Amino acid sequence: MEKSAILHRPDSEYAYLYQEGEFHIRLRTKKDDVTTAFLISGDPYLFGEDQWYQEQQPMTLLASTEIHDYWQIVVEAPYRRLQYAFSLVGKDQETVFYGDRGSFEDTKEVREVAGYYFRMPYFHEIDRFKAPDWVKKTIWYQIFPERFANGDPSITPVGALAWGSKEHPDTTDFYGGDLQGIIDHLDHLTELGINGLYLCPIFKASSNHKYDTIDYFEIDPAFGSKETFKELVGKAHQRGIKVMLDAVFNHAGDKSPLWQDVLKNGKQSKYVDWFHIHSFPVAIGENGNFEGARTVSYDTFAFTPHMPKLNTANPEVQDYLLDIATYWIKEFDIDAWRLDVANEVDHHFWKKFYQATTALKKDFYILGEIWHSSQSWLQGDEFHGVMNYAYTETIEDFFIKKSIAPTKMVSGLNEQLMLYRQQTNEVMFNMLDSHDTARLLTICNGDKELAKATLAFTFLQHGSPCIYYGTEIGLDGANDPDCRKCMIWDKDKQDLTLFEFTKKLIQLRKEHQELLSFGSLEWHLIEENEKVVGFRRTANDETIVAYFNQGDAAYTVNDHGTLLMEQSAELIDEKWHLKQNGFVILKK
Amino acid sequence: MEKSAILHRPDSEYAYLYQEGEFHIRLRTKKDDVTTAFLISGDPYLFGEDQWYQEQQPMTLLASTEIHDYWQIVVEAPYRRLQYAFSLVGKDQETVFYGDRGSFEDTKEVREVAGYYFRMPYFHEIDRFKAPDWVKKTIWYQIFPERFANGDPSITPVGALAWGSKEHPDTTDFYGGDLQGIIDHLDHLTELGINGLYLCPIFKASSNHKYDTIDYFEIDPAFGSKETFKELVGKAHQRGIKVMLDAVFNHAGDKSPLWQDVLKNGKQSKYVDWFHIHSFPVAIGENGNFEGARTVSYDTFAFTPHMPKLNTANPEVQDYLLDIATYWIKEFDIDAWRLDVANEVDHHFWKKFYQATTALKKDFYILGEIWHSSQSWLQGDEFHGVMNYAYTETIEDFFIKKSIAPTKMVSGLNEQLMLYRQQTNEVMFNMLDSHDTARLLTICNGDKELAKATLAFTFLQHGSPCIYYGTEIGLDGANDPDCRKCMIWDKDKQDLTLFEFTKKLIQLRKEHQELLSFGSLEWHLIEENEKVVGFRRTANDETIVAYFNQGDAAYTVNDHGTLLMEQSAELIDEKWHLKQNGFVILKK
Repeated sequence: MEKSAILHRPDSEYAYLYQEGEFHIRLRTKKDDVTTAFLISGDPYLFGEDQWYQEQQPMTLLASTEIHDYWQIVVEAPYRRLQYAFSLVGKDQETVFYGDRGSFEDTKEVREVAGYYFRMPYFHEIDRFKAPDWVKKTIWYQIFPERFANGDPSITPVGALAWGSKEHPDTTDFYGGDLQGIIDHLDHLTELGINGLYLCPIFKASSNHKYDTIDYFEIDPAFGSKETFKELVGKAHQRGIKVMLDAVFNHAGDKSPLWQDVLKNGKQSKYVDWFHIHSFPVAIGENGNFEGARTVSYDTFAFTPHMPKLNTANPEVQDYLLDIATYWIKEFDIDAWRLDVANEVDHHFWKKFYQATTALKKDFYILGEIWHSSQSWLQGDEFHGVMNYAYTETIEDFFIKKSIAPTKMVSGLNEQLMLYRQQTNEVMFNMLDSHDTARLLTICNGDKELAKATLAFTFLQHGSPCIYYGTEIGLDGANDPDCRKCMIWDKDKQDLTLFEFTKKLIQLRKEHQELLSFGSLEWHLIEENEKVVGFRRTANDETIVAYFNQGDAAYTVNDHGTLLMEQSAELIDEKWHLKQNGFVILKK
Repeated sequence: MEKSAILHRPDSEYAYLYQEGEFHIRLRTKKDDVTTAFLISGDPYLFGEDQWYQEQQPMTLLASTEIHDYWQIVVEAPYRRLQYAFSLVGKDQETVFYGDRGSFEDTKEVREVAGYYFRMPYFHEIDRFKAPDWVKKTIWYQIFPERFANGDPSITPVGALAWGSKEHPDTTDFYGGDLQGIIDHLDHLTELGINGLYLCPIFKASSNHKYDTIDYFEIDPAFGSKETFKELVGKAHQRGIKVMLDAVFNHAGDKSPLWQDVLKNGKQSKYVDWFHIHSFPVAIGENGNFEGARTVSYDTFAFTPHMPKLNTANPEVQDYLLDIATYWIKEFDIDAWRLDVANEVDHHFWKKFYQATTALKKDFYILGEIWHSSQSWLQGDEFHGVMNYAYTETIEDFFIKKSIAPTKMVSGLNEQLMLYRQQTNEVMFNMLDSHDTARLLTICNGDKELAKATLAFTFLQHGSPCIYYGTEIGLDGANDPDCRKCMIWDKDKQDLTLFEFTKKLIQLRKEHQELLSFGSLEWHLIEENEKVVGFRRTANDETIVAYFNQGDAAYTVNDHGTLLMEQSAELIDEKWHLKQNGFVILKK
């Protein structure tokens, strides 16, 4: 047995409370190296007395990657305490005891040593990672407000261009999108069926993207008033749509009064400790060149001098930002915060943020913008989920870039899933495009069948899917700023077939919400050369199977069930024939 | 290369700030599988522009266990942000790129994918694990107050036995030890040289061990008054001795007014939510049998109905316990809390505890009683260290129990060290005996040479060592209650040779404090059959080498330096001849 590969980490995503009293234990071994894994467990204070270490329970093979197998078992404990270790049987017949002091030959003597066991000392409900239930049932819709709809021409910025007048918008363009525009098109969202709205920043800022905040307590005047925003939230809630705002707490805009005060008063500014300033006078680049200047005398977002980084270790800054965070919940009843550049803000602050927001609304959702692995933010006291690029990029690598084979995709998805607790995976934010990436249709080179297959596949995975505004009607666009085109409202120019498809997909997700949110996912077909995958989602007595063909050639699937959705699929002689980009989703 | 064994975890003991701006990165590979490990790193926002991913720096082989090698590198980052991955060269010549999405062949194309890298998004000083500097310089002395010295016969409990009158004390005996007794013997501690005093509980309680607290705001009347305690702390501080108290926050004693109120008023008690009560009336065991009863209607420490578990998720309980925690700091200037059964109290509470105590005293030390691996408590916002049984048991297994070979001991020690950040290891609490274990001399079967060798070895390791009262003068005792014998004050009955030895050892530790606290530790001699180990501690230009012979036969060491300490060692023909239990400590 390859003992160097065996891994367990107590009190982590390898050992956690899923529901009250229900404890999940995972173990990692080398792929195809262990035939059976057992859990030895019991109450620590009955160790000698009951000799429970003489018994064991089999674990389930939960997921595999190219190099690892992941085992899991669900346990309860009558006294809310657990002492545990693993007994493994290798393909080579070796039996190994693995516990808190490493691996040993699995003998009676070894099992009798209390110190060799892992511990879940006590099941504390307060420490359990609690994922808001509604997020598991949510299909998100992301709006970049300046480009969704102009509902109030009276507040359109001076010099704004005519709606959609440029085929490719430039970085500094304005088009006049606003909150009234969103209210005006709530019917579109309701018809589409989404039930979560994620708005990019709406606070007063100078750019069109509003990530350079001037005043966190004000709606940008070009977007509307607080009354309009209140109306938007109210009307969204009436339609069963939750509202998530974008909080840019890593940095302020350099036009904010805070930073302007620093520029004006230097060391005497009362905001001098609100930023990370290394020397005075505050210098904005070695050659006065604003963008991309590397030598500034203060910390910035990336190398952008007009986005000075906030010092979130300063209690005054913390209070200020927490006031903002709670203000928009208390006064406007928002349901979630998406946190911009969340990984570059300190953990201490996010822990306070979690406390302050969830104290106001128990099922408040906190979504961090983190593109890389995020375990240390997802322990239950900071964020509930992250923008799951690491997960969806793996899907895109297989479906769209064609850079990886099916096995590698499944391996990559499983590897990502195994980084987090099950309840975390249930509320991850899965988007195939956003204001920060090229659009789905564009990375698909305009191939709508491919885009649809990728969307359908993503909707069937763990996590809450998100549609980026316009993707549902065929909007395209390369990387920023091109992915921020004006929404097309002329029905003649919308792809209504794509709209109907997306609508149907959303409906499918909602109709099988329990299954798709909580159900297990098993890969029962991986055709490496044919580029076909088939998987099964199961919960309670319900099962859905799905097959996706990404190969050039047609592929025949011999499986049956009630047809839920298909593309380029034909039932011939009771078998499903899938062409390229074809898929079929069946209910068993 | 065995890719299934490769491990790195961002934002953990594998990737952490050691000092301000100084970032440590570790990597685990299979033992003897990788010849060289490199770090590829740079600023995330200069990734494409600078193409720093074309360069790499070699890592150091930091430690090895029987199955793993651990590599480390220390890095800084000009913009306080780091993106990184690893390049590994296998013994089989395979080159592997390992990063946030697993392992790949190390090619230019792979290195160019930003998403394949780990991230330390920003160096936040507030999130850094800060170990109190003084603890690194501390040699602790643990006192079980009821058995150290009777300094005030006027408060000795009625029915107390004559001091030391029983060879083996019983569970319920009282002998009259008190705080005045400790004050009276501060000269003993000063002469010994210790500079940290750990007192087992001193608050009002009914038992002799006082772990069943009645009133956390009162000194037990049999131990003395608050004035006496204030005097003790003051006098200790005058002598440069820090004082650590024992906080029993997992449970209360059943005689405490809190629990008594529950017993009296049942569901109407205002303390009903202060405990974990499952049904009323509160039942104390299926057959009324108090000790060991399994069926009680409330949660307890272990199965001890007279220690009802506190509900630390209740804000009232939190406030109450935090008041206690801060009261003894504010009013009595204590320097540290040792937290009893710390693993069974929730993380939320300990995070608040950390905040409250370190806010009062920046270099306050928090020590958790945890016997198993403790990563989730040692992330920098709960405890600074734990009672390091897992570490010292490995020493005892080799030296005393003779159950493991030298390689296994070194492997076990390294495995424990690699669970934690370097600064954590520097303040771990290393004791060879305590009120919860049999005494050193007893587990050594009375072999004082063996006890001394084990002590000397432990004093040369990472972490702060502790002497359990009496061990320095030859007190023995089996498991509790026998390890709680009365201290021997009659010089004729003390082992003065052992006292001098311990004194010298403490002096050695203090004279080479920098080296022994911060220095690296390399094992340069492991004689598996002869049972001899030799290691080197190095810091700056200073080096100490030490050799320990645990074999039956004599062993000759050809090494030189200024003799610091020895036992059963003789210099013949410029070589050191070590008999069994012999050791030599040399300064290079």
